Amino acid sequence: MPSSEPRQKLWIETDGQLVMSDYRVRLLELVAETGSLAEAASALGLSYRRAWGKVKEIEANLGRPLVRSEVGGAGGGRTLLTPAAEQIVTAYRRFQQRVEEDVEGAYDDELRDLLTPP
Amino acid sequence: MPSSEPRQKLWIETDGQLVMSDYRVRLLELVAETGSLAEAASALGLSYRRAWGKVKEIEANLGRPLVRSEVGGAGGGRTLLTPAAEQIVTAYRRFQQRVEEDVEGAYDDELRDLLTPP
Repeated sequence: MPSSEPRQKLWIETDGQLVMSDYRVRLLELVAETGSLAEAASALGLSYRRAWGKVKEIEANLGRPLVRSEVGGAGGGRTLLTPAAEQIVTAYRRFQQRVEEDVEGAYDDELRDLLTPP
Repeated sequence: MPSSEPRQKLWIETDGQLVMSDYRVRLLELVAETGSLAEAASALGLSYRRAWGKVKEIEANLGRPLVRSEVGGAGGGRTLLTPAAEQIVTAYRRFQQRVEEDVEGAYDDELRDLLTPP
């Protein structure tokens, strides 16, 4: 039997301006995972230029740097998250996880039976 | 000082198919408020045809009628929600309200301080 499921999209605004979202957090997370903005961009199907622009926009909105470059070394340098960005990514994932659980609970209590096809 | 706020969008899927959303519930609610699908459509900037199509699509997905027509009377007939649709609209609003409160709470606990510009 088909069962209905709740979905949600979350984002954060400051004065009506988008400052953080599921998508932007994913971009930062991919930078951390790959050590490269180019690879993070490619994983999301973005041009490097566009990914870079997004990171700079989030930095401007939040008023602090989120990525930093480490030059040299075997791989010829990599891009890392700043401690502030790491903290934000971790906290956002906790926030998102908690909301997901809340949405499931509220849905089970209020809507699931009503929306399941007879 | 600018303060950051969480936003969310909710919807319900059955087998990957959209069956209910903030927007669709608003459409049904407007039918109930105005007694007219034409007025509900106009309030959302939709053509009558498109609004009608949306209602029929939701009915098909949920497997039950959501609106009914009452003919005659002083105004020359009106469109009403079925009891099932009224129940769904009320329950969805409760679901939405509860999630909004949960999102605010989770945001205050996990993210607000981190995302407020210095």
